[in-house]
Formats: sequence, C-alpha cells, structure tokens
Amino acid sequence: MQYVLVCGGSGGIGAAFVRHFLTQPDTFVFATFRSRAQHLAEWQLQYPDRLLPLPLDITVEAQIAAVVDKIKTQTDRLHYAINCIGFLQTDNIQPEKNLRSLQSENLLRYFQVNSIGAVLLAKHLLPLFKHEERSVFATLSAKVGSIGDNYLGGWYGYRASKAALNMFMRTAALEYQRTCPQAIVVLLHPGTTDTSLSRPFQTNVPPYKLFSPDRSVAYLIQVLGQLQPHHTGTFWSWDGSQLPW
Amino acid sequence: MQYVLVCGGSGGIGAAFVRHFLTQPDTFVFATFRSRAQHLAEWQLQYPDRLLPLPLDITVEAQIAAVVDKIKTQTDRLHYAINCIGFLQTDNIQPEKNLRSLQSENLLRYFQVNSIGAVLLAKHLLPLFKHEERSVFATLSAKVGSIGDNYLGGWYGYRASKAALNMFMRTAALEYQRTCPQAIVVLLHPGTTDTSLSRPFQTNVPPYKLFSPDRSVAYLIQVLGQLQPHHTGTFWSWDGSQLPW
Repeated sequence: MQYVLVCGGSGGIGAAFVRHFLTQPDTFVFATFRSRAQHLAEWQLQYPDRLLPLPLDITVEAQIAAVVDKIKTQTDRLHYAINCIGFLQTDNIQPEKNLRSLQSENLLRYFQVNSIGAVLLAKHLLPLFKHEERSVFATLSAKVGSIGDNYLGGWYGYRASKAALNMFMRTAALEYQRTCPQAIVVLLHPGTTDTSLSRPFQTNVPPYKLFSPDRSVAYLIQVLGQLQPHHTGTFWSWDGSQLPW
Repeated sequence: MQYVLVCGGSGGIGAAFVRHFLTQPDTFVFATFRSRAQHLAEWQLQYPDRLLPLPLDITVEAQIAAVVDKIKTQTDRLHYAINCIGFLQTDNIQPEKNLRSLQSENLLRYFQVNSIGAVLLAKHLLPLFKHEERSVFATLSAKVGSIGDNYLGGWYGYRASKAALNMFMRTAALEYQRTCPQAIVVLLHPGTTDTSLSRPFQTNVPPYKLFSPDRSVAYLIQVLGQLQPHHTGTFWSWDGSQLPW
C-alpha cells in the first residue's frame, strides 16, 4: 500500500491531487481541509477505505500534530506528502501593487500561512519519512517566489513568503537527507492554474497558459515521478525545468 | 552636502558605518538607535552639526514615519541609506539547529525584524531618493540567507528571514527604478564580523576570517562605491563578488 498526504485538499490544485491519487491502485490518501470540503465528503463515500479527510488549520501547530497522530494510527510511513496550502489574497488582503500599500500585519499573515505553516509541517512529518522506500515531500511554491526571476516587482508579501518558503524547505531538505535518505524534498511551480487563487489575476493570461487543476497536477505528477534522491532541496516548474532561487 | 542615514547605528556594523561617514567631509549623518547608544551621544558632542541620532524601533511603522519626518526638516534627499538592523539571537530566541526546535512565534519575530522592518523602511524612504544625484540604499543581508548557497542547513528562521529580505529589497529595487532612476538598491553580506550578533558563533571561524566592524565597513564602502545604477536589485559580498539568491 502507498500512503499519500495532501494538505490543502479542499483547494483547486489540492483537490486535483487527491483525485489523481484516488485513481491509483493500492493508494491511501489522507487529505486535509480547512473549511468545508463538499467534494472530499463525497469522495469519502465513494472510496471509504481509500480516503481520510482531516481538518487542519496550518497556522495552529497542535492541529498539525493531531493530523500526524491520526495518520500514525494507520501507517508509520508516507510515500507522498503534497502541501498545497497557501494564499495570494483574502477578503481583507490584496497582493500589494506598490510599497505604499504595504501593511505589516498583512505581511506577517503571508509568512504565517505560506512559509511558517509549511516548515512546521516538515517538522511534524519527519518521522513518517524515516523509511527505506522512495518518498517525495513536495510543497507548492510559485515562480513569482523566485528572487532571481523577479523582473516585474509588486506582490511584495506573496513573493517574500514564497522565497522564505523556498529557503525553509531547502533547509528542511538538508535535515531530511541526514535521517530520511530516500526522501526527496522539493518545491513546485504549478503554472497559472484556474483556481480561486489566480482567478482575480487571469485577465492577461492567454488561455493556453491557463491550466485546469487536473492538467497542472498531471504535469506535476510527471515531474515528481522523475525525481531522484539527489534532486532533494530543489525547485521545479510544471514543465520539468528547474527554477532559479 | 551629502546626507546619510544609518539604521541600527548602535550595533557593531552600524556604529562603524556612522564612524566612517563622520570622517567624510561635507557629510551629515542621521543614525537610528533602538536602545541606549552611548557612543552616538558622545559622537554627537564631538560633531554637533554633522550627526543626529534618532530613536527607532523598526517594528513600529509610526516610528519609521517619524524618523523620515525628522530627516525632512533638514533635507529632501538622501545619498546613502544603510540599514544594519537585524538579529540572529536574543535572550529568548536561539537560531534553530533542527526542525524540532522550530517555534512559530520565534519565526514570526525573525520575519518582523529582519524582513518586514526593512521593506517598511523602503516604503517610507522612497520620497527621499527621488532626486538626480547618485544614491545608494543598502541593506545588510547575510550569505546564509542565500538559498542556493545553503548546503549546511539549520538556522531556519534567520535564513528564511534573510531570503525574504532579499526578495523584498529586490522587489523594492524594481519599484525605485521607476521613480528614482539614480538610486541603487542592494543587499550586502558583511562577512563574519566581530559583533554581538556573531559572538556566540565564532568558535569555528578562523581569525583571518573574523573582521572587526571597521574592517567590514571598509570593505563594504569599497563595494558600494563601485556600484552602478544597473546593479540595483542585486546581492554583494564584502569581497566585491556577487552572491546567488
């Protein structure tokens, strides 16, 4: 049996990952959700022995620990962990077009959800990767989180939170390497995907560059399948190219 | 007259920058300090018309605005702004050796001081760089904040806060470029410098690699002097080499 954890399984890309893994044989999926997740409930009825939805607010460390405890009642190992949690805007927070619109509390929120949440997850998941089978721990980052690739500016909080995320997971990859030699810890850029995250910003995206969640996930699964242990601590685009930090 | 702002003028490297600029002719220095700054008080007695110490807690945006208001009573332009504010450890926060020691509130504090403080400063200083003379806005980062150069791991919060800082200032550089075409916005790595920041971690640093603050600043001043406008948004080491993100 292959064990998979998808964090943010109620979001666009997360849900598509859950759907993908449910089509795989001998695969059990733990899927976290923050608020309601109608489709997770429906899929659980369809796959009662293959899917376990678990509530998780990534900003509450005790909830991460509770998710891991729950997983441990069924398995001592994960083969895939895919963290899709992150936000670009909320009802109250808009990505900043310029320095004038920066607000300290919004910036802190970007770091708390997009960066710190991910590394706390890495902290609690580590024991589940201490095994000798191939395993992948992938976190959704974004090309706009590449410092070297930034020629446009704007989106201060989102960009910086993704750069911080990249550093956190690169650092975690080095620690995993010491105790979980088969684990491949990577960052992913899914391309612009038609989800609630990107919807307000799709105006200038040509249709052929706007992927459905299923299409993004198909690309990313292909990338993940080709990774080797020596790729741990790197940052990959949906098209199989490596991204600069 | 050349106008210089040094933020963190009470710290080891900041104080050395203040000292350096006071030796330059026709130079006025604004120097911010957080807690007591005996040497700033002494130097002000020595250079009453050349130095103005100003209190600043970088985590309080209103204090940044107050510093800028104070500067504006004397000048409408800055030629140098050097931000030396940042921390690696405090009485309560130690750089993390491993994932197990990560604590959400400590990580938030790293971002608040080392990353957000700097970009809020960039927000408020922008009007002072809207002039046609050569100007440099430099922020102390650290080589351990380079994601690509990270092969050792550990120090999660400090590393991620410096990566976020690098992204913030790269993004700010792009915005400054549009309205302040002569301003050069860069990140600096000062080398390991004998200050209270590095003191607990100097054990394995060979003496020839441990710089006095004055020596670090001499190197950095040389680097800053050679920068051209097209270098804006880049990351430099004390030895004049460019660092990867």
